[in-house]
Amino acid sequence: MRVAVLGAGPSGLAQLRAFEAARVAGVENLPEVVCFEKQSDLGGMWNYTWRTGLDEFGEPVHASMYRYLWSNGPKECLEFADYSFEEHFGKPIPSYPPRAVLRDYIMGRVEASDARRHIRFNHAVKWVEYSEETEKFSVTVKDLVADELVTEEFDHVVSATGHFSTPHAPEFEGLDTFAGRVMHAHDFREAREFTGRTVLLIGSSYSAEDIASQCHKYGAERVILSYRSRPTGYAWPEGIDEVPLLQRLEGSTAHFADGTSAEVDGIILCTGYLHHFSYLPDDLRLVTNNRLYPGDLYKGVVWQENPKFLYLGMQDQYFTFNMFDAQAWFAREVILGHVDLPPVAERQADIAEWRAREEAGTCADDEIDFQAAYIRDLLSYSDYPEFGVEQQADLLKQWKQDKKRDIMGYRNLGYRSTLTGSMAPPLHDDWINVLDDSAESFLLHNGVTDHPRARAALDAREAIVTTPITTRQDEPVRR
Amino acid sequence: MRVAVLGAGPSGLAQLRAFEAARVAGVENLPEVVCFEKQSDLGGMWNYTWRTGLDEFGEPVHASMYRYLWSNGPKECLEFADYSFEEHFGKPIPSYPPRAVLRDYIMGRVEASDARRHIRFNHAVKWVEYSEETEKFSVTVKDLVADELVTEEFDHVVSATGHFSTPHAPEFEGLDTFAGRVMHAHDFREAREFTGRTVLLIGSSYSAEDIASQCHKYGAERVILSYRSRPTGYAWPEGIDEVPLLQRLEGSTAHFADGTSAEVDGIILCTGYLHHFSYLPDDLRLVTNNRLYPGDLYKGVVWQENPKFLYLGMQDQYFTFNMFDAQAWFAREVILGHVDLPPVAERQADIAEWRAREEAGTCADDEIDFQAAYIRDLLSYSDYPEFGVEQQADLLKQWKQDKKRDIMGYRNLGYRSTLTGSMAPPLHDDWINVLDDSAESFLLHNGVTDHPRARAALDAREAIVTTPITTRQDEPVRR
Repeated sequence: MRVAVLGAGPSGLAQLRAFEAARVAGVENLPEVVCFEKQSDLGGMWNYTWRTGLDEFGEPVHASMYRYLWSNGPKECLEFADYSFEEHFGKPIPSYPPRAVLRDYIMGRVEASDARRHIRFNHAVKWVEYSEETEKFSVTVKDLVADELVTEEFDHVVSATGHFSTPHAPEFEGLDTFAGRVMHAHDFREAREFTGRTVLLIGSSYSAEDIASQCHKYGAERVILSYRSRPTGYAWPEGIDEVPLLQRLEGSTAHFADGTSAEVDGIILCTGYLHHFSYLPDDLRLVTNNRLYPGDLYKGVVWQENPKFLYLGMQDQYFTFNMFDAQAWFAREVILGHVDLPPVAERQADIAEWRAREEAGTCADDEIDFQAAYIRDLLSYSDYPEFGVEQQADLLKQWKQDKKRDIMGYRNLGYRSTLTGSMAPPLHDDWINVLDDSAESFLLHNGVTDHPRARAALDAREAIVTTPITTRQDEPVRR
Repeated sequence: MRVAVLGAGPSGLAQLRAFEAARVAGVENLPEVVCFEKQSDLGGMWNYTWRTGLDEFGEPVHASMYRYLWSNGPKECLEFADYSFEEHFGKPIPSYPPRAVLRDYIMGRVEASDARRHIRFNHAVKWVEYSEETEKFSVTVKDLVADELVTEEFDHVVSATGHFSTPHAPEFEGLDTFAGRVMHAHDFREAREFTGRTVLLIGSSYSAEDIASQCHKYGAERVILSYRSRPTGYAWPEGIDEVPLLQRLEGSTAHFADGTSAEVDGIILCTGYLHHFSYLPDDLRLVTNNRLYPGDLYKGVVWQENPKFLYLGMQDQYFTFNMFDAQAWFAREVILGHVDLPPVAERQADIAEWRAREEAGTCADDEIDFQAAYIRDLLSYSDYPEFGVEQQADLLKQWKQDKKRDIMGYRNLGYRSTLTGSMAPPLHDDWINVLDDSAESFLLHNGVTDHPRARAALDAREAIVTTPITTRQDEPVRR
């Protein structure tokens, strides 16, 4: 039996780890697992690249992350049940690490396993097709370096290519004649592009609030957040304002729904992402908006029309890494035949029940509890280790409140690990002051000196940002 | 018999026009022709869009053109033999029109024909496959609006999707930590993004020289052109400098091969494009660099491995629209069986002969003569009207000299049409002063008052740019 895993980001790696855990546990007759990854290394979205649009091979760039991105949720709510942060770093670290530190953690679990040998890097999935005759999938991938197509057959396919890579970018009147840069958040890379300038962000969700924070932190003169339905409502510092929806642009003047206007230098559309699967025929392709329980997926994982095709990570997300793990362990049990799938109508009823429950929720806390309940249900089907889902849900609710109380300061706080029981220390300095987001700087400043990367950093440091930046008041800033 | 034409830009439209010309001439038993176009309108590259990267449907954005783009070659060298500029505009117009005027001309010929009814807009080609069994091609396209895949069968396929849409973007040390915007020329849209700033352009070919001119014209403080092999050698005005290749970036400091360095605000990689066909299997896919005679194409058009698959416009280009026409008329004759293709070995010998001739050239004039000879050869196979290829070649040589003499002023000059014999008037003002590049402004200022669009422009003008812009000397500029 052969299983194809599409993508080697957090979800795809979870699937490789799930099969490895079974191997280590002595499960016999495991399938051959092959993972196809478009990028040249693992980590998916967590690999930073300066590239935008199309990559060096003409493939759409997967990464949406920008420089100076820090986790916007506590690491205690995404901890792998089988590999704690403390195990990786040797001691407790602050709750909101920068991107490079989280990537290091993801890589650490993988390097400690045999996962890498299953991955074919620089292989972009081009097409998947199921044959009723052979009862197998043909998976056609492009070997980007050799510049040639290869087709192989598989019994199961696990799609783990994410849903934060294809921008949803609506039209606004005058964008085609706007006198400055227009981009989607997917293509945002470097806040210092807007140092001393005014940037307009359209949107009021995670991208908008985080890019606003970054641009302010790195010296934007003014950040304007333009919302469709409702403002973020955070107590923004001076220099960040919220206005209703952009109506039209004239030259560099933006006109808003409340009749106000502003001169802006650049526009970032923080307007979300599309579930997009360029490599799938219609009969295998999930069509959904971004929600906690997409339709047509039994237990959020198994494709209704063809249960040999599975999806990971297609949900709107409060939980992330450990939810992908719970899904991957469940998917493994389905593939191995250890979970008996009920008939299609029964599965449909189960999906409908979950969706009704999702829709009955009225606030963020309900959503968090819903996703926790979903994960708890998944865990009942596999031996994925206990990680305190409900306590993590409570942490997420706390996080929402902490963020609400201080949008520019919540990353200074620490939370308790549900795995180790250790309390995270507070960040070594106010987040707003920490301009250098390199893993080395973060680890050294937070006392992780015996970590291999931290030790190496004493000799050779990665490029860092410590240059003083002037604020809109032209005063030296913050460190 | 059914023919699929992929793309409704200048090449694809040429193919539609070629079949229509045969219909008008009374040729019988013409095939059904279906043209699939990803964009919502015809014109291909000539449609401007503010979008970069991926479009509203998640498809790679085709367009590479920016605002304020004017033709960089005389219109007299791209005139359709069957539809002169004078016929379209009612009188002679200057030789270097802005993008919107050229697009208007392209559209004019099409609207005067039945071409549009053959085109399925918002249909992106996803996959083409040939069956030895049925001797037909299956063409799978995505109906982007309906969000569904459709597969149809064709006897012939003409690929006309261009080769200036997929960036070739090499890596430079420090790009990943550069403190400003990095983009490929494909994603450049608006020169005023760099007004008052310093922009570094990597490259020394058409994109680099033209984007340098635009940025200077719209008030960039400084433009630095960094070349790999040799400088452009133009007599640039103050504010545009040429330096050897970028070696590395540190923060916002660019270090060059000659030991000099500069602080830059943004970087544009003018490093060319890849021939890229995401929808083709390896046995139909042209693999070539950008040259005057790509291999594996008989007469630059017919795919050697399978002569029922044809390519238009895959050459490096001095000639453009009328060369595509000559190719399309030839392709039509091949498809209709009016041209007997010699056996494969003979075709290979013909290709080898042309490539040897291309490689024997030593200068731009040789290249121009080579492409003229190639077109002349093509014309001998069809009834495409005479348009004075060799005189146009002489104009192109003249153009090279005029540009060499005055890179910022060559667009003020006029040339004689090889079709009508009329001399083009000089541009109404120095090009450097003409900030408003709208079709309306150009036509009105150049006396085209009875043209429908010009008349409409008297009442309602498209968004235009006339705002005074300050130069790097902070003086009011130029108009």
